Amino acid sequence: MTRFSDPQRLERLIEGLDRFNATPGKGTTRLTYTPEFRQASDYLRGQMEAAGLTVREDAIGNLVGCLVGHNPALAPVMIGSHFDSVPNGGKFDGPAGVIAGIEIAFLLKERGLVPERSIEFVAMIEEEGTRFGGGLLASRVMTGKVDMDEFLAFADDAGITVADAMQAYGLEPAQAPLAVREAGSVYAFLELHIEQGPVLEAHADDVAIVDRIVGLGQIRATFRGQAGHAGTTPMNVRRDALVGAVAALSQLPDLARAIDQDAVLTVGKMDVRPGGANVIPDLVSFTVDIRAPGEEVVRTLIDQARSVIERVGGNGLGVDVEEQIFLPPVPLSAELHEALSRHADTLGLKRRTMVSGAGHDAMIMADFAPTGLVFVPSRNGISHAPEEWTGYDQLARGVDVLFLALCELAGATPQS
Amino acid sequence: MTRFSDPQRLERLIEGLDRFNATPGKGTTRLTYTPEFRQASDYLRGQMEAAGLTVREDAIGNLVGCLVGHNPALAPVMIGSHFDSVPNGGKFDGPAGVIAGIEIAFLLKERGLVPERSIEFVAMIEEEGTRFGGGLLASRVMTGKVDMDEFLAFADDAGITVADAMQAYGLEPAQAPLAVREAGSVYAFLELHIEQGPVLEAHADDVAIVDRIVGLGQIRATFRGQAGHAGTTPMNVRRDALVGAVAALSQLPDLARAIDQDAVLTVGKMDVRPGGANVIPDLVSFTVDIRAPGEEVVRTLIDQARSVIERVGGNGLGVDVEEQIFLPPVPLSAELHEALSRHADTLGLKRRTMVSGAGHDAMIMADFAPTGLVFVPSRNGISHAPEEWTGYDQLARGVDVLFLALCELAGATPQS
Repeated sequence: MTRFSDPQRLERLIEGLDRFNATPGKGTTRLTYTPEFRQASDYLRGQMEAAGLTVREDAIGNLVGCLVGHNPALAPVMIGSHFDSVPNGGKFDGPAGVIAGIEIAFLLKERGLVPERSIEFVAMIEEEGTRFGGGLLASRVMTGKVDMDEFLAFADDAGITVADAMQAYGLEPAQAPLAVREAGSVYAFLELHIEQGPVLEAHADDVAIVDRIVGLGQIRATFRGQAGHAGTTPMNVRRDALVGAVAALSQLPDLARAIDQDAVLTVGKMDVRPGGANVIPDLVSFTVDIRAPGEEVVRTLIDQARSVIERVGGNGLGVDVEEQIFLPPVPLSAELHEALSRHADTLGLKRRTMVSGAGHDAMIMADFAPTGLVFVPSRNGISHAPEEWTGYDQLARGVDVLFLALCELAGATPQS
Repeated sequence: MTRFSDPQRLERLIEGLDRFNATPGKGTTRLTYTPEFRQASDYLRGQMEAAGLTVREDAIGNLVGCLVGHNPALAPVMIGSHFDSVPNGGKFDGPAGVIAGIEIAFLLKERGLVPERSIEFVAMIEEEGTRFGGGLLASRVMTGKVDMDEFLAFADDAGITVADAMQAYGLEPAQAPLAVREAGSVYAFLELHIEQGPVLEAHADDVAIVDRIVGLGQIRATFRGQAGHAGTTPMNVRRDALVGAVAALSQLPDLARAIDQDAVLTVGKMDVRPGGANVIPDLVSFTVDIRAPGEEVVRTLIDQARSVIERVGGNGLGVDVEEQIFLPPVPLSAELHEALSRHADTLGLKRRTMVSGAGHDAMIMADFAPTGLVFVPSRNGISHAPEEWTGYDQLARGVDVLFLALCELAGATPQS
């Protein structure tokens, strides 16, 4: 059913990039500004050049391959994703979107298509935040959302700052502000990403056209009780912090189920102290990650979770609830959603509209330029693990949708 | 109300011993065979000698002060406790019982009492198991319950074996088997210990005469689910190991409450993996510590806990339950319980019969010689912490009970 892109070339490109990996055999680990990151960047540069692009590295290490249009005065369309990884992750999270762009450059070159508007094919740094924390750094820098002095001072676990790491990578930290883009300098931003969830596979859909990024709230609950010897403290005089935490935890997932079918609530991190098998816990803390498409739903869920936790705390335990993150939902461009959906239909693909439960560079770009995001299926919904997988035919279908959308945006007429 | 022992001398002895401590200002840390342990042993030797005892160090470092009776052919009565500590613990857990013995030696000397039967006042090593694991080592060695080659091969966290540590301490490992006592060589064993729980204080009792050590079962439950991204995995397709664990945990404490007012159940150690705030947990494990005076109750509680855990596991999660420890309850000597209770009454003390929820050297001695154990109150029930405290008047009342019991057992007539 694929009409344009080449699954075998996609495989060659993905596998070619994946050789630059600090943990071969144990998933993909490629941290920003490391030697393997440099090798990966060099590999991408070579492929971009082979696809006819004029390549430059911007001031913070983003790789930008440009196809100059007939009218270079027009703001370019940008397409791409990131090429850093989580530790021991997969080979698709990020690279799928970078390689999608390069494949499209090959498709344009093979057809001799020169668009009216220039196109920038980008491979971005530090989306995961694995090395310097925070994440989404390339898009945050490009769109002027991060103070550049702070950016240069971010440090990794070994205490190496962004500035030091840039220098070792061959970049000049003082020039980093040159990576910031002017308002209006990007006409539109397109990204392909793997879904990282089970929805497309469960519905046997080919692609999802994302219409918004969920809102996110994270809170941290702490229960304080009284430690004591497990053998010498009768049940009726205990102030067991874990018993309190469990009473709250047992009520939390149902809050999300009751409020909205697209809401999710996750307790992923939990700490029980002092942690002896024969000691009653006096300090238990856990995180609550809450996501939903609607801002009001996120706020309501945070309030409900807080109230469940505090009600339990009244029972002889001290309780703190601390709000750690709040990000409102981010709507993507309705026009691009319509266009991407229309092209998917043209291609005869089975598509769905989806809310993205994860943040992506598209989330940061969305208030800077009209932004569109396409998901392709993840096998078993698995991501951030060596088992992360998307079939190359599946990837090709998503690339085709972006190819047609890009031709329309940049002004080029593909012949199938 | 104290008629015999001297609270001020008890304070001087406890404080004198507590100077030998690796963590001054942060509670008491005195690990077996360390330099501070040697200094503590030397201090105790000096005090024992001042109390008129003939002191020897046995082949594994237990200090034994002997008061030779009129009839040295009779098996001696033994009294004492341990002088090692947990990390950053208190100054009473162990030392209270060692110092109780020395105080009694002073009382005998001051009264010119020479008993019919010899008395051995002991200060024992490695009850807590802090350095070499396992614990109760002095009593296990003395009563022949541990293979001596295994004993010498136990190692601390730095990999130093008991044999190496003994040598550095000035002992000859090859002679360690000489510390094993012959069957019948101890007429009776008496121990004073702090309660380490809140019961005596809550009832304003002076002493507890312990009639048995609880039975103990420890199991470890493991829940296995599927990790996934907290944002991209809908609630209805999750296999969240923590949600399963919480469903089981919420039912566990009531099992103990329902079965027996003296039963306790504690989950003290819990691990949630992979442990990212935005990752659905795929592996959760926790320990369940179960104690009760009756062996059948312990076994029933283990079965009930296992069945709760496995029932939850049926719900799409893998579950393992592993039995880690099972120790049946240990009854102490009924005769000594009667005698200790009678002496407490003679002294006009408020006493109660209690089951010990913690193991002590008395537990190991109980099948080797008739054994009696007396508890004194712990302020706020706190132990294994710098705040561990027993008033010296309170300690003195417990010492008096043991003094009278020891006089009776060894054949000496105290004048009040």
